[in-house]
Amino acid sequence: MTTQQDCVALDAHDALAPLRAQFDLPDGVIYLDGNSLGARPKAALERAQQVIAREWGRDLIRSWNTAGWFDMPRRLGDRLAPLIGGKAGEVVVTDTTSLNLFKALAAAVHLQADGPNAARKVIVTERSNFPTDIYMAQGLASWLDRGYSVRLVDSAEQLPAAVDADCAVLMLTHVNYRSGYQHDMAALTAHAHAKGAVTVWDLAHSAGAVPLDLHGANADFAVGCTYKYLNGGPGSPAFIWVPARHQARFTQPLTGWWGHAAPFAMAPDFVHSEGIGRALCGTQPVVSLAMVECGLEIFEQAGMDAIRAKSLALTDLFIALVEQRCGAHPLGLVTPREHARRGSQVSFTHPHGYAVMAALIERGVIGDYREPAIMRFGFTPLYTSFADVWDAVEILRDVLDREAYDIHASRGAVT
Amino acid sequence: MTTQQDCVALDAHDALAPLRAQFDLPDGVIYLDGNSLGARPKAALERAQQVIAREWGRDLIRSWNTAGWFDMPRRLGDRLAPLIGGKAGEVVVTDTTSLNLFKALAAAVHLQADGPNAARKVIVTERSNFPTDIYMAQGLASWLDRGYSVRLVDSAEQLPAAVDADCAVLMLTHVNYRSGYQHDMAALTAHAHAKGAVTVWDLAHSAGAVPLDLHGANADFAVGCTYKYLNGGPGSPAFIWVPARHQARFTQPLTGWWGHAAPFAMAPDFVHSEGIGRALCGTQPVVSLAMVECGLEIFEQAGMDAIRAKSLALTDLFIALVEQRCGAHPLGLVTPREHARRGSQVSFTHPHGYAVMAALIERGVIGDYREPAIMRFGFTPLYTSFADVWDAVEILRDVLDREAYDIHASRGAVT
Repeated sequence: MTTQQDCVALDAHDALAPLRAQFDLPDGVIYLDGNSLGARPKAALERAQQVIAREWGRDLIRSWNTAGWFDMPRRLGDRLAPLIGGKAGEVVVTDTTSLNLFKALAAAVHLQADGPNAARKVIVTERSNFPTDIYMAQGLASWLDRGYSVRLVDSAEQLPAAVDADCAVLMLTHVNYRSGYQHDMAALTAHAHAKGAVTVWDLAHSAGAVPLDLHGANADFAVGCTYKYLNGGPGSPAFIWVPARHQARFTQPLTGWWGHAAPFAMAPDFVHSEGIGRALCGTQPVVSLAMVECGLEIFEQAGMDAIRAKSLALTDLFIALVEQRCGAHPLGLVTPREHARRGSQVSFTHPHGYAVMAALIERGVIGDYREPAIMRFGFTPLYTSFADVWDAVEILRDVLDREAYDIHASRGAVT
Repeated sequence: MTTQQDCVALDAHDALAPLRAQFDLPDGVIYLDGNSLGARPKAALERAQQVIAREWGRDLIRSWNTAGWFDMPRRLGDRLAPLIGGKAGEVVVTDTTSLNLFKALAAAVHLQADGPNAARKVIVTERSNFPTDIYMAQGLASWLDRGYSVRLVDSAEQLPAAVDADCAVLMLTHVNYRSGYQHDMAALTAHAHAKGAVTVWDLAHSAGAVPLDLHGANADFAVGCTYKYLNGGPGSPAFIWVPARHQARFTQPLTGWWGHAAPFAMAPDFVHSEGIGRALCGTQPVVSLAMVECGLEIFEQAGMDAIRAKSLALTDLFIALVEQRCGAHPLGLVTPREHARRGSQVSFTHPHGYAVMAALIERGVIGDYREPAIMRFGFTPLYTSFADVWDAVEILRDVLDREAYDIHASRGAVT
């Protein structure tokens, strides 16, 4: 049996523990929702103040050059690249995950339409994928109006067979937002390539959560989010990765002036920028973008291997303690026990999942809820301690034992 | 002859003059580039600090609801609507101008393709339009791959004839970014409608600069920028207007989860939100978005009629003083003298325009430069005084009289 003392001891030996001091976290809160909105790096406030007061207020228009605003999508992309197994010049931080997915998907479709697989018209993904990914694929397919369609697969086991002779693109979210299930990126990519499909990976729940090796997996395109595990701030711009080998043929319809080879020449015809610049479109929200750097700086002090080791220790501990201390209650583990198949969150079902989560939040344990009946708990090694896990489970146990939740709680949006 | 005393007297009687105190402007600078990046409302720093430190740092994920983050695109849209002659529920502040133009253009094309004008496949615009608008139209036309094309018209005079039986959409920027020429929106929209075309208006250089009456002009769709005359901050999210009469048929391919009728139901099929929500796509950059409100609050204290009256007085004064005091130099007025055809900027050509502008900036008169040979001076009645105009012209005269500019100055990007 694991004890509270064991958890305290784990913290005492945790090399990542000091990094928590770089985050602003409120007292009395155990924050297990960094998979939805990462906590605030203390440096983000100062960085925003600098951008707003000095760069905008004092230097005004000149800051597009002198403060590097115009180059920020590429500069931040270069810093983010090592976290996902990408290289410098292959990533930009820009726009939203939905939009970047649209660009990547359009490019993947174009790559196929321009080659021997032009007859393939199916985009394969999972029914359980984060909905916006499915919606963007449906939007693209519908507007292309050339027979493209989206095929929704009901389980991970059925994916290999679904990549058939009609499949142009296999589009997957690497770690599922609801279950925390992690796909085998290298195996699925190899399978897709063997079957003639190209792959688009959404790393929204992977970047900063699990080690990633896009080049090692031979992936084709990837997108992801900076405001979850990367702690970039609410709604901070997303990223897109295009490996060097695909950049010369990367074509997408959102051809704004930031993606032009010579944006200030003001020429009336669009000429693609070279390289990853092809994924850029319009002018970016500088203040929200600048704070992304503060999150990335903390990752550079840690390294994904140490983060992954602690993540697995935290999620293992949470599963063990819930089963040990809340075993009498109807909780169903949704997240895989197998390390290789797990992201950095743990999801449990409960018949009154919404009400239980509302009660937990009331008690300061902030996770979230996703239909149907799923309570999500995200574990973020940069600022979550083993003692936090103990305390969170104790509060969960107390809420469940005393039935201290309101099953008639109104369903406000728990994002 | 206008004197410096005349200018000082104009300021003494200017009812808008007190609003300048709500902006942070550096000493020693005459800022005539608010048409590119608006000056900083003092309130923006405090607002950002509140969002970052309290809403993000303290309230964390709950702020999506409790701080109204999720509703912000609509709430800000409702506040912006009166400035453009739109109504509540017709505007959202979201994404970039380029992306919103893509949505509006796609919707306009769809509207035509779905009706009696389905055979029309030409998007008409001006060669002198801001390039990203042309590029986005080219991107859409190319991807639709159904015979759509973009027709570039060489002058405003040729526009009416270019709206012919092939024209599906007339897409124009209301005030030209380079010349400051203002189109007659009502007349061109009426002409387009009479010829069977629908209109998409880019208000990037109009919103907050000139009075707008989209409903009065019977316009079909509009987009615009918040970081120029509206002072929302560098790269702050743009806006899109869809009048109530077109909302039920507003369809565009960027169908992200924020545009879903029930985004938190996490359903695998896309169902359009009602109303202006159809123009939303993905998660927005909250900090950059929140500061837009600080700019709008200042406009609510002024009113566009008073702003326009002062704008015309400022630009009339600038033209008169330049001609009076710099008349010996080869300056060419590009901006129309006719009030109805003028935005809130004045552009002059000079054979060494780039070098002259670089010298002006060095002396604290911040305008900008656009190829070919055009010096742009933006006049923003909320924070520009008549004495500023006098001083700016005096410095211009001195630079020109003494030839105090370096014609070999390197061409860094002057955005």
